Amino acid sequence: MTTHVDFWFEFASTYSYLSAMRIEEEASKRGVVVHWRPFLLGPIFAAQGWNTSPFKIYEAKGRYMWRDMARRAERLGLVFKAPAEDAVDRFPQNGLAAARLTLAGLHEGWGQAFARAVYKAEWAEGADISDAQTLARLVAAAGGDPTAAATRMQSPEIKSALRANTDDAIARGVFGAPSFTVGEELFWGDDRLEDALDWASA
Amino acid sequence: MTTHVDFWFEFASTYSYLSAMRIEEEASKRGVVVHWRPFLLGPIFAAQGWNTSPFKIYEAKGRYMWRDMARRAERLGLVFKAPAEDAVDRFPQNGLAAARLTLAGLHEGWGQAFARAVYKAEWAEGADISDAQTLARLVAAAGGDPTAAATRMQSPEIKSALRANTDDAIARGVFGAPSFTVGEELFWGDDRLEDALDWASA
Repeated sequence: MTTHVDFWFEFASTYSYLSAMRIEEEASKRGVVVHWRPFLLGPIFAAQGWNTSPFKIYEAKGRYMWRDMARRAERLGLVFKAPAEDAVDRFPQNGLAAARLTLAGLHEGWGQAFARAVYKAEWAEGADISDAQTLARLVAAAGGDPTAAATRMQSPEIKSALRANTDDAIARGVFGAPSFTVGEELFWGDDRLEDALDWASA
Repeated sequence: MTTHVDFWFEFASTYSYLSAMRIEEEASKRGVVVHWRPFLLGPIFAAQGWNTSPFKIYEAKGRYMWRDMARRAERLGLVFKAPAEDAVDRFPQNGLAAARLTLAGLHEGWGQAFARAVYKAEWAEGADISDAQTLARLVAAAGGDPTAAATRMQSPEIKSALRANTDDAIARGVFGAPSFTVGEELFWGDDRLEDALDWASA
């Protein structure tokens, strides 16, 4: 049996970007297989009484997050552009379509590359990741068929698969993104990525 | 001018325990001086609408924290005992007296040892750190005079010094504990301890 880590990510999440860009390299160093599990934080936050990102609700935490992300991205050699002060409504973005397309792509072998491309477009290029044309371009760049994917993402199977991922995340105690699970063990945050992979390979 | 890091800690905080026990060793490796700055999270949490620890308000996050703390403590070779399920009212503890005593001790050279002793009593031994007799024992063990310290902690100077620390923490954007500041740079969480020290010594 191959050891695996479930990688729980949400496209609205800043720190999920860091993990998405580096998890495959770190996992392969340890002989661990990663199951990419897009999910939605919206229902989880709503159950806590939040109608948006906690980084918007708690201002000091939000200010800190943007600075911390900039430092972490630089350390990892990743480009990171926070939304401009006058474009604060650009955060959090709606990642629903990107999550459904990722699920379609994961069945066809282009899901991981697509997810990374979405994060790069969102955080390195300032793109609107709910825009259909942008998503079509990213599907094609990842090796998928944009027209087929646009149809497939609206299928009952894909819609229910995303709901099932979110329900499964909640059942495992996930409350933020990125998260990682190894059996019953939950790890939260990009700064626990190595711990999760080490746990899986121990 | 010696490079220094301000170490912001609160005695009710679980993760502050990890940092308190290891910061001096990590700092000395890098030639960095640590200024120990006890403060109170109560006023900061109250300003966010919280009347207790977010780990109690947000259940999934709380459950995660206890497990994460156990894993991190084991990794660092520290004993950590979470309050028993039926003693959940023991968290968060009231760290006011311990914080005032620490400030008294920092002026007299026994503050750091006392702070570490309080954390050890709280998290490794399950002690009540608001208990006057327990605190007197810890002051003595750290090299202070318990009787003099009990008087000194009630002085206007010590009371206002703790308020000033809390105000200074807020002014620097601190929203949780432990935190570390190097000039204008804020780092939050025990998992940013190395980053903060590296920043100070760069």
